[in-house]
Amino acid sequence: MGVTVFDHPWLSGLFTDAETAAILSPGRQMGHMLVFEAAWSRALGATGRVPAALAEDVAGIIATARIDMDDIAAGMATDGVPIPRLVAQLKALLPEGGAAALHRGATSQDVVDTAAVLALRALSDLFDARLAALVAALAQLETRFGDAPLMGRTRMQAAEPMAVRDRLLAWRLPLEGHRARLAALRPQVERVQIGGAAGDRRALGADAGAIVAHVAAELGLGATPKAWHAMREGIVDYAGWLSLVSGSLGKIGQDVALMAQQGIGEVAMSGGGGSSAMPHKQNPVAAELLVTLARFNAVQVSAMHQALVHEQERSGTAWALEWMVLPQMALATGRALAVAQDMLGRITRLGDPG
Amino acid sequence: MGVTVFDHPWLSGLFTDAETAAILSPGRQMGHMLVFEAAWSRALGATGRVPAALAEDVAGIIATARIDMDDIAAGMATDGVPIPRLVAQLKALLPEGGAAALHRGATSQDVVDTAAVLALRALSDLFDARLAALVAALAQLETRFGDAPLMGRTRMQAAEPMAVRDRLLAWRLPLEGHRARLAALRPQVERVQIGGAAGDRRALGADAGAIVAHVAAELGLGATPKAWHAMREGIVDYAGWLSLVSGSLGKIGQDVALMAQQGIGEVAMSGGGGSSAMPHKQNPVAAELLVTLARFNAVQVSAMHQALVHEQERSGTAWALEWMVLPQMALATGRALAVAQDMLGRITRLGDPG
Amino acid sequence: MGVTVFDHPWLSGLFTDAETAAILSPGRQMGHMLVFEAAWSRALGATGRVPAALAEDVAGIIATARIDMDDIAAGMATDGVPIPRLVAQLKALLPEGGAAALHRGATSQDVVDTAAVLALRALSDLFDARLAALVAALAQLETRFGDAPLMGRTRMQAAEPMAVRDRLLAWRLPLEGHRARLAALRPQVERVQIGGAAGDRRALGADAGAIVAHVAAELGLGATPKAWHAMREGIVDYAGWLSLVSGSLGKIGQDVALMAQQGIGEVAMSGGGGSSAMPHKQNPVAAELLVTLARFNAVQVSAMHQALVHEQERSGTAWALEWMVLPQMALATGRALAVAQDMLGRITRLGDPG
Amino acid sequence: MGVTVFDHPWLSGLFTDAETAAILSPGRQMGHMLVFEAAWSRALGATGRVPAALAEDVAGIIATARIDMDDIAAGMATDGVPIPRLVAQLKALLPEGGAAALHRGATSQDVVDTAAVLALRALSDLFDARLAALVAALAQLETRFGDAPLMGRTRMQAAEPMAVRDRLLAWRLPLEGHRARLAALRPQVERVQIGGAAGDRRALGADAGAIVAHVAAELGLGATPKAWHAMREGIVDYAGWLSLVSGSLGKIGQDVALMAQQGIGEVAMSGGGGSSAMPHKQNPVAAELLVTLARFNAVQVSAMHQALVHEQERSGTAWALEWMVLPQMALATGRALAVAQDMLGRITRLGDPG
Repeated sequence: MGVTVFDHPWLSGLFTDAETAAILSPGRQMGHMLVFEAAWSRALGATGRVPAALAEDVAGIIATARIDMDDIAAGMATDGVPIPRLVAQLKALLPEGGAAALHRGATSQDVVDTAAVLALRALSDLFDARLAALVAALAQLETRFGDAPLMGRTRMQAAEPMAVRDRLLAWRLPLEGHRARLAALRPQVERVQIGGAAGDRRALGADAGAIVAHVAAELGLGATPKAWHAMREGIVDYAGWLSLVSGSLGKIGQDVALMAQQGIGEVAMSGGGGSSAMPHKQNPVAAELLVTLARFNAVQVSAMHQALVHEQERSGTAWALEWMVLPQMALATGRALAVAQDMLGRITRLGDPG
Repeated sequence: MGVTVFDHPWLSGLFTDAETAAILSPGRQMGHMLVFEAAWSRALGATGRVPAALAEDVAGIIATARIDMDDIAAGMATDGVPIPRLVAQLKALLPEGGAAALHRGATSQDVVDTAAVLALRALSDLFDARLAALVAALAQLETRFGDAPLMGRTRMQAAEPMAVRDRLLAWRLPLEGHRARLAALRPQVERVQIGGAAGDRRALGADAGAIVAHVAAELGLGATPKAWHAMREGIVDYAGWLSLVSGSLGKIGQDVALMAQQGIGEVAMSGGGGSSAMPHKQNPVAAELLVTLARFNAVQVSAMHQALVHEQERSGTAWALEWMVLPQMALATGRALAVAQDMLGRITRLGDPG
Repeated sequence: MGVTVFDHPWLSGLFTDAETAAILSPGRQMGHMLVFEAAWSRALGATGRVPAALAEDVAGIIATARIDMDDIAAGMATDGVPIPRLVAQLKALLPEGGAAALHRGATSQDVVDTAAVLALRALSDLFDARLAALVAALAQLETRFGDAPLMGRTRMQAAEPMAVRDRLLAWRLPLEGHRARLAALRPQVERVQIGGAAGDRRALGADAGAIVAHVAAELGLGATPKAWHAMREGIVDYAGWLSLVSGSLGKIGQDVALMAQQGIGEVAMSGGGGSSAMPHKQNPVAAELLVTLARFNAVQVSAMHQALVHEQERSGTAWALEWMVLPQMALATGRALAVAQDMLGRITRLGDPG
Repeated sequence: MGVTVFDHPWLSGLFTDAETAAILSPGRQMGHMLVFEAAWSRALGATGRVPAALAEDVAGIIATARIDMDDIAAGMATDGVPIPRLVAQLKALLPEGGAAALHRGATSQDVVDTAAVLALRALSDLFDARLAALVAALAQLETRFGDAPLMGRTRMQAAEPMAVRDRLLAWRLPLEGHRARLAALRPQVERVQIGGAAGDRRALGADAGAIVAHVAAELGLGATPKAWHAMREGIVDYAGWLSLVSGSLGKIGQDVALMAQQGIGEVAMSGGGGSSAMPHKQNPVAAELLVTLARFNAVQVSAMHQALVHEQERSGTAWALEWMVLPQMALATGRALAVAQDMLGRITRLGDPG
């Protein structure tokens, strides 16, 4: 049973979206790491650094390996990364001579970062689809309620009458913008990480380019001219995007919570949260949660930017800070997207109470 | 299997300390909530609002209730709090008429906040003991190596020769200060939360003071003149303390990582992390982790301060932000204390390499 | 004499870059606001809402108006924005009937945001040129020292020998990426802000599109289909970019500070900071400052993301938070760019001390 | 003319409080630095390290020295601190042999930190008095309106009727708590900083204790057993306090802004901000500003906690980050205290609109 809200037996009911969590699950993550190692072995074979048949054998063994998670966990505390133990476990499964086709010339960060990228790719697919669905839901609300009068409010005060459409546009247009931002951002992120010990690919010699190309092609990722071990801008930019999305949804949540106040009454919704003390209340739980998730990510994004100060060829300090924060940001954004979709679907009226 | 580093099957090996996690575990948390509800029932009996015998019966049933966690989780998504479902489950266990002795006059936040306070109390005990152990370990290092020469370094440059003692003092004195801060802070935090629906204890009428006193006495917490539903300064101050502690430990970690550099060589340690690419390396994983945990908490503390803007009598938004962040801050500080103790214990030499 | 480091009589010597400060200066800002108002008047004339000659007269008076700053400041405290007083001052300068051609249909945020955008445009020009100069300086360092051996360092430990080129690439490539990011980002930001009271341009009636087009064309900004009063993603994305840039420069600074340590000696530089106590020291002030500025912006970016939760049609709260933070982020990035250029130019050797 | 909102010719009208700014002004700061240097000279005389008459002469010259600020600013850019140039300027004013009585055995950070502490002392006096005035104002509002009915609101929804008193208590009690916190915090902060080059006071030999005692006594600060150059917990704790205060005031501001909504109408106030587009509006500028200032400080506090990772004997990086942030936090808190006082004084009705 987990302690954080995302992994907690009952708090996760509020904070976690199953699809997002599945993409980030340790099982999927281990799978991505094995996929990398298998592709690496095949690349060593394809470039003739080991016999191609051996490489294929090793790749097959890696692909079906059963990993002892407790051993990996034990290694984390001393090594700070899961890979030394993972490689040791894999090596024990190989036939005589197979070690030459395993992880040779790679380093821990190559594996962990590439696995992370594979998760981000899946997240991007999911989140883009969800944004599209939200855009559609908002367009539908506009069709239903767009012409209804709504008091425009500025600085928390009634300003001038306008139409529901005007507010819905301020909810929808940013989401369309986020889809465009994501499309531009993905190639920055969906790139293979390959550098080796010091990040210079030296152990790969003249084969470096071919190995990178092979691994990239097999994983469907972009190739890179150099390892980005210490160049984290792509990842950090992605984190910023996650927070832009949750921020835009937080604005919708804040507006809905304000519209739902007694005395304002600009929205009616089905569903809503119960109270242990006041059964008559309908709490705007979804709207509030959107604000919470926005403010959470607005804080976390700071950690990602701190992690840009990534010393020398690889920083254990800055890198581990990313691990602590980036998955949580994705969970928060994924949950916000799901909650917003649900909330918008429960709106039965928008506009001045009349 | 959890997704965040604290609950993750292998990353938790690096980031999570078992004792801290146990204190914050959902099982313990549920136990605290039931302890509150039982004390509440008894307080209703003690003040004659229900027959004392009925109150005692109900308290006994609460204390031994088996809770359906899936149901609680399902309720979270709609209610935003676990208590409506928890109370419903408890009610179903009670004999006819028992409902009058259950939760009557309390509200969700009373239960959840008081349960959190009981966890913070246990954390404070643990962390104070750990700080004391660290202070002792540092004093011992001073005994062993305090007189050894060490180049004083300012602005990352060699400044003037000094003694190892001078640096050790800058590591130890803040930890002594944190113990004093904690002692002063605990009474601010270890207070019962009781307010009822709107936080004014109105449903308790003239018995309010007696009920508060009864519950506080039974739980060993301080009484309060008013619910602190919307007054979060104590909790936020505590979060600041957690980050002060991890920050001071981060300074130690940063220093150790700098001292361990080849070419500097001011510390020797047993143990150290392995590398998948470079078996000869001894990575200062513990030292780096201390910096990471410090920077993590330095970010999270911002969320807690954002949560001070807690609108009206109770804010779902600000309160949920605390849930997301405060347990993680405690986990980070708990882990930092444990890692620092381990790291200091592995030091075999301090001072100029000579 | 100013209090913050950016405006402080002597601290600004460390923290402020004159060119960046000039772009953000109040005088320039007031100029931008008047430029907007003049363009607005002309647009009212061009669309026939007022006689074109009157519009031109009013625009000319606006362009040459001398503004009483003390009066504007006095208005800030009560109005929260400078525009009501500014418009009042301008109105007093106009001939009979001129008021119809002044600010009619615009709102404070239209003026202030468009003026901010004009400043951001100038900043983008400056920063892009500086990034290009940095890229060139790094390429030159590579020419001079790229082949020199340098110990690769990972997790603060010597890893494997590599070449100076490898580290220089990790400094340069992100800067090239930032130029590309900026080019993509500019059209998102360099857009006119026009909405009127409730942001729906209602007061402009059927002329709205023509007025927007006219003002945009006159100012050389993009037109917008809707006011972005409450859609702050473009601005926040820009703030993220500022922090990405300072973060990449912070990584360079951290590396240089580590390379400059006695016992490491991987960089030699001319210049360097003096010490009041130790005249023999050469403090790597520039390198340290780059880290400071990176961490500063990594914190500030959180405020900008918090400001995404921008309630209703316009939020005084979230908007004012941008004012507090965005100019400082730009100042920090501008200073970091200048300091990095200076620091790189003072490098006289890179690589293992040999 | 300054660029940041605190130093800006018109934005400062909204964001800056004159009394707070005066305490933090460069002139006052330079005065504090000279006061330290003069006390230092006298301490050298009192302990016989230089002739007492010479020490007194030098102290007198320091006290009346006219400092060339441009020269100090020029030094900042290369030295990263103002003190080398300041000491050089002072030295030039001294008679033959006077240099022995000037700054000997001190270091830049001793001067700058002690000067900062003297400013914090004055801020604490001011802020404590303002908190007391706010507590009184809130008590007065309770006298006037405490019995009036007010709908209790939880999770942004009407919950149960209560009295105005209940909300006022949630505004006042935290402020009383902050006064108690401040009283406990001041001795942690109001301490002299004396360490010398490497922070070990070695240059002072056996006189170190006497010199510290002398300087502390002359400045009315606490003595310290060791320099706190690298132990920043006191300062960071103080920053946390500043943000706790602005956070509590932000909660009041948020409540007032919500109460002032049309359709809610739970507060009436005189004054209020004008709009350039809607002369009929009364914007709750003060209430909004309180929220802005709270969120600003909630972000800044993160930077202060990042600065706890203060490497070795003195970190230029972490220290400069404090300079960037701490004065702004004080300015924000000072302004929030003044704005809250003004806002509460303009309340003419509290409670349900009836």
